[in-house]
Amino acid sequence: MPPTPAALEAAIRTAVAASEKVRGTTNPNPPVGAVILDAEGNTVGIGATQPVGGAHAEVMALREAGDRARGGTAVVTLEPCNHHGRTPPCTGALIDAGVAAVYFAVGDPGAEAGGGAATLREAGIETHQGLLEDDVTAGPLRAWLHKQNSGRAHITWKFAASLDGRSSAADGTSQWITGPLARARVHAERAQLDAIVVGTGTVLYDNPWLTARLPSGELADHQPVRIVVGMSDIPETSRILDDAAPTVHIRSRDPHEIVDALSEYTDVLLEGGPKLAGAFLAARRVDRILAYIAPVLLGTGSAALEGAGVGNIEQALRFRRERVETIGQDLLLSLVPADTPTEE
Amino acid sequence: MPPTPAALEAAIRTAVAASEKVRGTTNPNPPVGAVILDAEGNTVGIGATQPVGGAHAEVMALREAGDRARGGTAVVTLEPCNHHGRTPPCTGALIDAGVAAVYFAVGDPGAEAGGGAATLREAGIETHQGLLEDDVTAGPLRAWLHKQNSGRAHITWKFAASLDGRSSAADGTSQWITGPLARARVHAERAQLDAIVVGTGTVLYDNPWLTARLPSGELADHQPVRIVVGMSDIPETSRILDDAAPTVHIRSRDPHEIVDALSEYTDVLLEGGPKLAGAFLAARRVDRILAYIAPVLLGTGSAALEGAGVGNIEQALRFRRERVETIGQDLLLSLVPADTPTEE
Repeated sequence: MPPTPAALEAAIRTAVAASEKVRGTTNPNPPVGAVILDAEGNTVGIGATQPVGGAHAEVMALREAGDRARGGTAVVTLEPCNHHGRTPPCTGALIDAGVAAVYFAVGDPGAEAGGGAATLREAGIETHQGLLEDDVTAGPLRAWLHKQNSGRAHITWKFAASLDGRSSAADGTSQWITGPLARARVHAERAQLDAIVVGTGTVLYDNPWLTARLPSGELADHQPVRIVVGMSDIPETSRILDDAAPTVHIRSRDPHEIVDALSEYTDVLLEGGPKLAGAFLAARRVDRILAYIAPVLLGTGSAALEGAGVGNIEQALRFRRERVETIGQDLLLSLVPADTPTEE
Repeated sequence: MPPTPAALEAAIRTAVAASEKVRGTTNPNPPVGAVILDAEGNTVGIGATQPVGGAHAEVMALREAGDRARGGTAVVTLEPCNHHGRTPPCTGALIDAGVAAVYFAVGDPGAEAGGGAATLREAGIETHQGLLEDDVTAGPLRAWLHKQNSGRAHITWKFAASLDGRSSAADGTSQWITGPLARARVHAERAQLDAIVVGTGTVLYDNPWLTARLPSGELADHQPVRIVVGMSDIPETSRILDDAAPTVHIRSRDPHEIVDALSEYTDVLLEGGPKLAGAFLAARRVDRILAYIAPVLLGTGSAALEGAGVGNIEQALRFRRERVETIGQDLLLSLVPADTPTEE
């Protein structure tokens, strides 16, 4: 008896949630989630990609399921991989486990690992693509798919500003424009990233830690690599040089050079300041914007963005709204360049 | 048989819609809507406040209902008035018509016109307050209630800006930051106002018409009075001096003085520019903000707001979000000062 549409939907949502938990820890592999349903449709295994060198999501889920996978269904966020990298191909594991069907959200665009569905079908396993595909494409696999397609790390520019676009008051004070819920969200997002980029100016003037902290104030389990870009030296007393996470200095101001230097990462957050963001935007090296907008007016103080190469309104940088969310009194907008197709 | 809760809900929503249609045309009277249900609960009359000197909403609805009002129910957005002004009291009309019950959303805070419910009860009519009260308070009766409570016109500051808080690009171009749907909404809002305020700088530099236009380009039926504030003369060739609507020049830069001079109006829109808005905000003379935020970045150009008297982050002007709405690609935020209670 094949699983009902409702059971499949529940399974893929469980797989997405499992993949979200490992986001930021799987680079260069994609953060994938997998669920195994037995022949009666019961959930018997849940897995997610382990850190590089470890098992893939399907293998983790199959291990939990054991013999109960036979005649059952695998539900995965990404097409199972077909190649022998550091671990054996997942297609082989699924075939060996005797599953009857594999449902996956997104096809694997890679030349090496792709073709998994064809291999499964040759082994007599039913395959279906497209379950919750848009959510997975824009969600947990977004950065990895971007890198597969473009060869570059996915860059998200995050900023927090007042409703009139300012990131600090006239005297430089900026704590806090957004509310506690938005700040907690920023820390939760940081814990799911490969790297976080700031300019030397931000290090010199704001002296941030750039760590991901839990609401308790403790460090989160996973910390992104801290990347400082720019020509100035980093003072030895900078907080960013503590041992909470690695810190890398890229001595460049050119966004193209910087993004090339980030090629070992997949999901990268650009945090500031306004001129660095302007340079990245002018160079078309921002793939997504996360804007935290507070219901606050300042009227003076630093602009959240400077020098994005716009001279007149025709040159305005236009974006498409992916999502708008209220977080306490603040808004969180997720935007992509207006010329970006819905599915990459 | 009293009307069912669903019938009452439908009736008050019809009354609200009727009142929205006359918003901007009833000053100094409130824009009220009324529905008459017959004894079986059928809608037999719908009315809204006529321009000053004309009939009130209840009388308009009773006229349509005629004898069918007897034993029926009146559903009104505001407590029926109790005093003989330019027209006889609505309480008398309801008593004469023989309605059995009156449901209204909001109590009349006025010393003169208030007390209508008590008069109705003395005449043996059942009265109920509170039907959709929050919606009516924050909606069609908002400005009028504000004026009853504070003695001052209700000032809404409207602005349109890029996500980084700019209202024009580096060369001064600003058409268009927001999209066509947002611009159509601005015109529809203007057609429901008593007056619209700009500074002399806006007249000199932007030379706007400040009229309310239909999507066809034609003038809307109702036009707000155009108020220009500031010390500079208005050039005779200014578009604002055309005959589409009256134009008034208030020679002052002081928000307190200006709002006092607007005492004959109830629902007033402040449109700009950034320094005038800053002065009104600093003087705590903005009662609501309507912010149209476009998914656009400029990085240079004029700020949407300047000089609101904020020196550090503790002095930031903080607001409470009433509503956020997507209009095409743009966002419309409705905000009130954070110290304003939910119900005025």
